[in-house]
Amino acid sequence: MERPVISFLTDFGPDGPAAICRGVMLGIARDAQILDLAHGVRKFAIADGAYLLESALPYLPVGVHVAVVDPGVGTERRPIGIRAARGDLLVGPDNGLLIPAAGALGGIEEARLLANRDLMLPVTSSTFHGRDIFAPVAAYLATGTPFAAVGPVVRAADLVRLTLPAPVVRDRGLDTAVIYVDSFGNVRFAATPDDLARAVGVLEVGRPLVVEFAPANGAESTLERTAWQETFGRVPAGRSLLFRDSLGRVALADNQADAAARLGVAAGRPARITGEGTS
Amino acid sequence: MERPVISFLTDFGPDGPAAICRGVMLGIARDAQILDLAHGVRKFAIADGAYLLESALPYLPVGVHVAVVDPGVGTERRPIGIRAARGDLLVGPDNGLLIPAAGALGGIEEARLLANRDLMLPVTSSTFHGRDIFAPVAAYLATGTPFAAVGPVVRAADLVRLTLPAPVVRDRGLDTAVIYVDSFGNVRFAATPDDLARAVGVLEVGRPLVVEFAPANGAESTLERTAWQETFGRVPAGRSLLFRDSLGRVALADNQADAAARLGVAAGRPARITGEGTS
Amino acid sequence: MERPVISFLTDFGPDGPAAICRGVMLGIARDAQILDLAHGVRKFAIADGAYLLESALPYLPVGVHVAVVDPGVGTERRPIGIRAARGDLLVGPDNGLLIPAAGALGGIEEARLLANRDLMLPVTSSTFHGRDIFAPVAAYLATGTPFAAVGPVVRAADLVRLTLPAPVVRDRGLDTAVIYVDSFGNVRFAATPDDLARAVGVLEVGRPLVVEFAPANGAESTLERTAWQETFGRVPAGRSLLFRDSLGRVALADNQADAAARLGVAAGRPARITGEGTS
Repeated sequence: MERPVISFLTDFGPDGPAAICRGVMLGIARDAQILDLAHGVRKFAIADGAYLLESALPYLPVGVHVAVVDPGVGTERRPIGIRAARGDLLVGPDNGLLIPAAGALGGIEEARLLANRDLMLPVTSSTFHGRDIFAPVAAYLATGTPFAAVGPVVRAADLVRLTLPAPVVRDRGLDTAVIYVDSFGNVRFAATPDDLARAVGVLEVGRPLVVEFAPANGAESTLERTAWQETFGRVPAGRSLLFRDSLGRVALADNQADAAARLGVAAGRPARITGEGTS
Repeated sequence: MERPVISFLTDFGPDGPAAICRGVMLGIARDAQILDLAHGVRKFAIADGAYLLESALPYLPVGVHVAVVDPGVGTERRPIGIRAARGDLLVGPDNGLLIPAAGALGGIEEARLLANRDLMLPVTSSTFHGRDIFAPVAAYLATGTPFAAVGPVVRAADLVRLTLPAPVVRDRGLDTAVIYVDSFGNVRFAATPDDLARAVGVLEVGRPLVVEFAPANGAESTLERTAWQETFGRVPAGRSLLFRDSLGRVALADNQADAAARLGVAAGRPARITGEGTS
Repeated sequence: MERPVISFLTDFGPDGPAAICRGVMLGIARDAQILDLAHGVRKFAIADGAYLLESALPYLPVGVHVAVVDPGVGTERRPIGIRAARGDLLVGPDNGLLIPAAGALGGIEEARLLANRDLMLPVTSSTFHGRDIFAPVAAYLATGTPFAAVGPVVRAADLVRLTLPAPVVRDRGLDTAVIYVDSFGNVRFAATPDDLARAVGVLEVGRPLVVEFAPANGAESTLERTAWQETFGRVPAGRSLLFRDSLGRVALADNQADAAARLGVAAGRPARITGEGTS
């Protein structure tokens, strides 16, 4: 039989608690391939975790995916499982973390409350549901426990969802927002190149564009004059470009340097992209 | 046959040397599930490594556990193996690192010196025993080499032990110490809730408590007025609580924020906990 | 059949993109042991990646090794595979990253261009060849796809190589350079103890030596008076030593402290080592 895959994403940091969860999973699913997606998600940043899950899961084999970014642990926040159309099972808190990824896997087919205590550790703490609830439930699912065994169905429409910024074409420019900054300092926007083209016209290589980041934390707005390119190497080291990133969205990067640090930009920052001189 | 589990903890950082050790282990035990417990242990902080091992191992399957936080590498510090009552084998330096974990696994059944050079790399350096001694010995044990083959028995009473701060009830307060600060900035104390209750009385939800951290590094003592709670969500974001942590000890946390950074507190800091107004 | 080993090194950071690549590999080679060598390589630092690969691969089982430190992604920089004499297959960009490791595995037996699109993801982006090209090619090789299937032979002499600093004996001293600084702050030189002995004579324990780091970034040169030792424990905590590191090269370390931070030294810094008073 093929070895089951369990992917695992948290904001726990790489050491200690994430390893404890892996240990719990291996104790139940000894033959699993546990694939650590990320444990360095910014603490409590549900949207960052959701972005990483959505980006990564379509490239993984069908499997069980457990994710824990969970500022509401120990409150009435519900623990849930989701079966996505591709066949994957997602396990985690009902706080919006799993929804974009479920969409990227074809959409939600069924959602269930995690309620069956036989699939959890005998004692469940009020501060470490990763170890006590999510990891063991995921591991049992990986060994073939039917999804229906985890608990009662909940309506997909009742699941908590993040509100993501929808790109808006306005006045020959595009209003969007930073949704993620990666470890290279590349700035990922919510908008796609199609959104941007609707606002500013055809995106030819070398097309000049201006990105204006909204004021934040008392700082003024930040203006970056750049151009549309296909890849980093088309501009000198240290110079910026706008491009279709590897996930199909618009991104701003400095070739071989950290654009987010230079510009002081973080996830959540609103931005407006215009053609040069049309702002 | 079930795949053997080897857990692995070091202060090597995630890259390079830890990977070399994993490579050595896989070369000997090709089918092993290697579970990285932590490689970001503070450099040379034996007590931090011991805490993480003790916390994690009871949640892992029975297996071989190799741990290397080893400021004494290349000195007369002995390399040892320990068989714990649960059936696990622990491998590492004789500097106290393994002892609390062995206790958490039911106690030491037998300890041996690692002396059999057939179970080590052909050349053993004086600066990288993780690669040359601990990793290969652990991997051979994982493939079924009998524990007795590693070397002669040493008396458990002769093993090096860490001196840990014992909680002391005094004057209607509890003297304890910080034993670990996790990546969320949660402050873990040596004392258990039972210790604390003996000092201040019943720990009801909302019970006001005061934590006084002793002066450190020229700084004054730090006073934190807080209360006993069951979980983070019972206080507003940014506010502190005392609670029974997921390992059964008393911990101080800020809900969704970093209490250790705010208070300037690190592992080893003595602290006194009292009921409000009884200090 | 023995499970294939795929080692994996990048400058992607531990989260997100590295995990996506692992997911792609597991989708193709479900039974592989994927061994993460390093994902914290300094961004775009090809020489650091090359050093880590060269250091680690001889200690790993024969396998497929994929490495991506790739400032030229999306340019005409070629994707290549190398078969080394030991039997390993190396996969990555043709920018010098793989060459020292191939040497450490017995030398290059055959090099090929990665050109067979059947072994890549259906759509290959211009910014994420790790996911789209290197990971899938490596995984197919791990499942037994013949090396000849990846694409046409390229001449080993035509591969891009890094220029590494060759140690020079001059005036009873040794001119060398820092090639790597590890997570302990230990400073690794390009030179071997044999090189150093040719310059200053026999390296007896306790032999006084002086390291002079060349001026860098406007700072003055830095002088460190130290001595040759066998291991850290031979000097007090916080004091420096020169020693044969676990890879057979000369290194400078502070016992239980960070020498590179204290001295302000980074990879690439030229240095001269002399006997005390002979400089």
